[in-house]
Amino acid sequence: MNTFGRSFRITTFGESHGKALGVVIDGCPALLPLSVEDIQPALDRRRPGTGPLTSPRAEPDQVEILSGVFEGKTTGMPIALIVRNADARSSDYDPLREVFRPGHADYTFQEKYGFRDHRGGGRSSGRETVARVAAGAVAAKCLARIGIAVSGTVEEIHGISDPAGREEEIRKAKQAGDSVGGIIRISATGVPTGLGDPVFGKLDSRIAAAMMGIGAVKGVEIGDGFRAARLKGSEHNDPMDATGSLSNHAGGILGGISNGNEIVVRIAVKPTASIALPQKTRTSRGEETTVSTGGRHDPCIVPRLLPVAEAMLALILIDAALEQGKYRNFVREGNLK
Amino acid sequence: MNTFGRSFRITTFGESHGKALGVVIDGCPALLPLSVEDIQPALDRRRPGTGPLTSPRAEPDQVEILSGVFEGKTTGMPIALIVRNADARSSDYDPLREVFRPGHADYTFQEKYGFRDHRGGGRSSGRETVARVAAGAVAAKCLARIGIAVSGTVEEIHGISDPAGREEEIRKAKQAGDSVGGIIRISATGVPTGLGDPVFGKLDSRIAAAMMGIGAVKGVEIGDGFRAARLKGSEHNDPMDATGSLSNHAGGILGGISNGNEIVVRIAVKPTASIALPQKTRTSRGEETTVSTGGRHDPCIVPRLLPVAEAMLALILIDAALEQGKYRNFVREGNLK
Amino acid sequence: MNTFGRSFRITTFGESHGKALGVVIDGCPALLPLSVEDIQPALDRRRPGTGPLTSPRAEPDQVEILSGVFEGKTTGMPIALIVRNADARSSDYDPLREVFRPGHADYTFQEKYGFRDHRGGGRSSGRETVARVAAGAVAAKCLARIGIAVSGTVEEIHGISDPAGREEEIRKAKQAGDSVGGIIRISATGVPTGLGDPVFGKLDSRIAAAMMGIGAVKGVEIGDGFRAARLKGSEHNDPMDATGSLSNHAGGILGGISNGNEIVVRIAVKPTASIALPQKTRTSRGEETTVSTGGRHDPCIVPRLLPVAEAMLALILIDAALEQGKYRNFVREGNLK
Amino acid sequence: MNTFGRSFRITTFGESHGKALGVVIDGCPALLPLSVEDIQPALDRRRPGTGPLTSPRAEPDQVEILSGVFEGKTTGMPIALIVRNADARSSDYDPLREVFRPGHADYTFQEKYGFRDHRGGGRSSGRETVARVAAGAVAAKCLARIGIAVSGTVEEIHGISDPAGREEEIRKAKQAGDSVGGIIRISATGVPTGLGDPVFGKLDSRIAAAMMGIGAVKGVEIGDGFRAARLKGSEHNDPMDATGSLSNHAGGILGGISNGNEIVVRIAVKPTASIALPQKTRTSRGEETTVSTGGRHDPCIVPRLLPVAEAMLALILIDAALEQGKYRNFVREGNLK
Repeated sequence: MNTFGRSFRITTFGESHGKALGVVIDGCPALLPLSVEDIQPALDRRRPGTGPLTSPRAEPDQVEILSGVFEGKTTGMPIALIVRNADARSSDYDPLREVFRPGHADYTFQEKYGFRDHRGGGRSSGRETVARVAAGAVAAKCLARIGIAVSGTVEEIHGISDPAGREEEIRKAKQAGDSVGGIIRISATGVPTGLGDPVFGKLDSRIAAAMMGIGAVKGVEIGDGFRAARLKGSEHNDPMDATGSLSNHAGGILGGISNGNEIVVRIAVKPTASIALPQKTRTSRGEETTVSTGGRHDPCIVPRLLPVAEAMLALILIDAALEQGKYRNFVREGNLK
Repeated sequence: MNTFGRSFRITTFGESHGKALGVVIDGCPALLPLSVEDIQPALDRRRPGTGPLTSPRAEPDQVEILSGVFEGKTTGMPIALIVRNADARSSDYDPLREVFRPGHADYTFQEKYGFRDHRGGGRSSGRETVARVAAGAVAAKCLARIGIAVSGTVEEIHGISDPAGREEEIRKAKQAGDSVGGIIRISATGVPTGLGDPVFGKLDSRIAAAMMGIGAVKGVEIGDGFRAARLKGSEHNDPMDATGSLSNHAGGILGGISNGNEIVVRIAVKPTASIALPQKTRTSRGEETTVSTGGRHDPCIVPRLLPVAEAMLALILIDAALEQGKYRNFVREGNLK
Repeated sequence: MNTFGRSFRITTFGESHGKALGVVIDGCPALLPLSVEDIQPALDRRRPGTGPLTSPRAEPDQVEILSGVFEGKTTGMPIALIVRNADARSSDYDPLREVFRPGHADYTFQEKYGFRDHRGGGRSSGRETVARVAAGAVAAKCLARIGIAVSGTVEEIHGISDPAGREEEIRKAKQAGDSVGGIIRISATGVPTGLGDPVFGKLDSRIAAAMMGIGAVKGVEIGDGFRAARLKGSEHNDPMDATGSLSNHAGGILGGISNGNEIVVRIAVKPTASIALPQKTRTSRGEETTVSTGGRHDPCIVPRLLPVAEAMLALILIDAALEQGKYRNFVREGNLK
Repeated sequence: MNTFGRSFRITTFGESHGKALGVVIDGCPALLPLSVEDIQPALDRRRPGTGPLTSPRAEPDQVEILSGVFEGKTTGMPIALIVRNADARSSDYDPLREVFRPGHADYTFQEKYGFRDHRGGGRSSGRETVARVAAGAVAAKCLARIGIAVSGTVEEIHGISDPAGREEEIRKAKQAGDSVGGIIRISATGVPTGLGDPVFGKLDSRIAAAMMGIGAVKGVEIGDGFRAARLKGSEHNDPMDATGSLSNHAGGILGGISNGNEIVVRIAVKPTASIALPQKTRTSRGEETTVSTGGRHDPCIVPRLLPVAEAMLALILIDAALEQGKYRNFVREGNLK
């Protein structure tokens, strides 16, 4: 299943070392002004090869719009976006053809499909998120028209909250041939009330699926999250007055439906699985061996994962807003921004 | 959207104070022995009115099978289960007709639908989980046949891990007209490799959606969860030898696909929103007021939520196992247990 | 898959000789006045036992609303409807336990599921349409509010167009232990422009699926149907003037999207498969035998199929109207009828 | 909605005069040998510009595989195929910018989306079927491995069954500035029993949706189709002996499930809507006018629609076969052909 969403559906394709990555967006409203310039900046944010602490793989990540735009505006028809791979060095992965890297999808993919594209993780590579970020940029453009803004921030790296200290943690991990994880906070403002369903399509449930569906994410919180488990009802409930909620422990969602407050989400990102330090593992023939995945990897994936998490939240919100008729209402009332 | 799952789909219906709650299960394999006795015990575990620390609402929660079973076995056709409501005291809720209870779906439901069934929360009531637990019992019976067992445990209440101390916390909260939350751990053993998809239908993504889709849940972790964000790659990666993984930081899922290890999930449950202490709020006409939701409520919903969380994990796993052909393989090979 | 529709989704359950038949409607708009009286008349129209030319099975087909209605109005939550079976004489079917009736689903169901509920066809019985007709009545009530009306008529029975002649055909078939089929025309007026999608969710494609999904239907036409294959473009194209189309060869749909004209559909219904005349067949053990399915059957199912076809067209139209926001627009503009 | 299928899902994109047409196939089994040579011949069959009686638009329709194939075999991951447009002469359509062509989607598309891509019909063009045919070729390759073959034939053109007479009909229509329609028969052999569901996902229902979802198709029949309406039960039922059915009036499907016989489908194709003869119509501003759509069109689309119909039947069958586990069984039993 490579399709995500109900009303604003994206279908992604492509492998780390294949010809191209891409996405088909189905359900984007008609008459939205859209060009490459709306999408490229988001791709540039997640692009590798931009600094000493990211993977040196040099990918221009230039997006091409193949369909769904006519005279500079969307047509309501599927928007196909592709990004061709440029700097795949598949031979780097030859030694890994038969070896399962710990912490990766190598073993599980092989078990599921009976084979494996060993080149850079194939479809299970983080490079697949290029397609999500491209689609997220279109989603964000739609959201902006109805006054919704998504943003995010890295809260901590390897337990360190101070930005300067964080960079030092990453540098140390790199030098040690190791890696570190961290925590990201994503939020959305301007969200209207009424997004999400009361039972199975709860907005928080959709967000949790989207976030846990990003590789390397191991935990998701809405509002107070795990801290809520240690509060009393009188502390956690958000009282209201005539103007709205007086606090936001709930993170903007009650009973699965947005209440107009800021949507607040936190996610835990595990340390990058690829490390230079030797690790015990086995081959696809069952032999024990040791693997050291030097190559071109990020010692900490957290900063590059930030635009991906933002993209996923944007996709969830435009999907719910379209489903709920919120976007259409703006159009009918002439309120598009 | 009141349908959940792809291959083992459940559609639930019913309100807290309506005639009945129920579920239609579509996709249950044929020829599974099934009777009321397979379902009733799970309902009895989540039933209210069973002790001094749960809601005194007296509901027998007797399940009736309306379809899908012929001569004691499932037919592969939809299984409809209903539980009639017996002890709904709707008049208790008359004072709340126009008042939004903090921490509840009252305000958001009204905003979304333009009206509200104020009787016990209507469809947004925890009572809706009767349907999920009934369906979960059928899922668990299917899973047992292919060797998968789901279980759970309360890990802490209001920050207390010691079981005796926990009960004391609940008692104190009740006396104070307040409420407390806690943390639940659910896990599954016997899970074959290969469940879940590499990109959007990741097994951990599906689990996160299912767990965050339970009312009162505010956080979800897989394996090490948020603790993973503070580990190094060399600490978090699970090394392998010829026999399998040597640790289980990943919680049984790599790259979105089960690896054969125990699936480990933790969820954070907020304190019950209904408390006797007075809280600031507003009415549907915008007037400020104070509300105290005495009534028949649980001062801590965590223990009664445990069978619900188990049911949801069972539903996710049977769904993925059917999709992946795992159940069918057992049938073909004559290995059903 | 026992769910139908996207925005107005119905999930049906129940067998011919089980406890009950039923349907859960998910997606019906809130605040629609709804009671048993809105549904019962449609069920009465398709009910057996009402004349000498229909099956004598005496079923009151009394519907019960289990959920989704509060103070006489829908809540936007799932509406569960059930109809209990009363006059199932399962012992009538004992001789058929191992015998495959020609023209029925007996053989194919057994092949697919490895077993068969031989009592009256189980889930494959025409009795399953009770659930569709009940749901269709709710759909029709919704449609009426936005000015859409669905109706149908029997066009011919066994090639005879004259109503008096038709009844005679059925009587003769009954006397001969045989059966006859016929043609039904269903149409919808008041349909707004814009229903249906340009590529895969074409309105005519959805209608074709719905009609061919009724047991015994073997052909579907939109507008001129097969006659269009013998016309020239200059004869078949519907010219337009400022007021609209000047003819309706297209049957109200162009490029998969409604054009505001009457939607016109014709379906071919095969003769009832159950006949008293002896027919060659085989048993589930592969032995050749002869079967004569006397029992309680309709010598011509066409008249009782008419309300089913109307129900399916109503379900397709309300589904598309909700998806397209047409219903919501009526609400917003205060135009509900 | 531009996605079709459940287990073998295709998502198509692209416009007649856009940059490219394409399809993403999600759910194709892994390890199927696949190259451009498997797809190109099918595209060549539907290609325009190949004779005096087809549109002279010169499109090489060269397919490129962007993803999902590794070392010559499918990976189980999405297969993206694109075909770039080469000979779009958009200026030909300038006079039609504001004019609704009778028999086309012009008016309905404008009504639905509030705008229209007037260049060659945009997304509503028959050129969109390039994507379906490409996907159908992959489906056919999968089907061949489990012994299923799909083929089709033109049965009549403008009422003429004789092939020589048919060509003459088309020539005459072209000379007169008019167009003609016809009837196509598509069938499938080697279909195993058990494909299709008993209630809403009936195999004939899916086929009807697929066929009526092809532009210009106005009628669909399974087996005897409309002729069945004039037969008696004793004539239409297919008797069985120990070896199988003794006739095939049903067209290979009983109760919505394949019975192992040849699947037989007939479709009615309307005459091409674009004709040179002048027709009354209106503009998007409501003015009455006359339109003559000379341009590069087929006086009879029936022959070029044949590979499209075959593709759709192949897509339906592989989808059902995968859903039902039939393909997987062949793999497990080492029986792939």
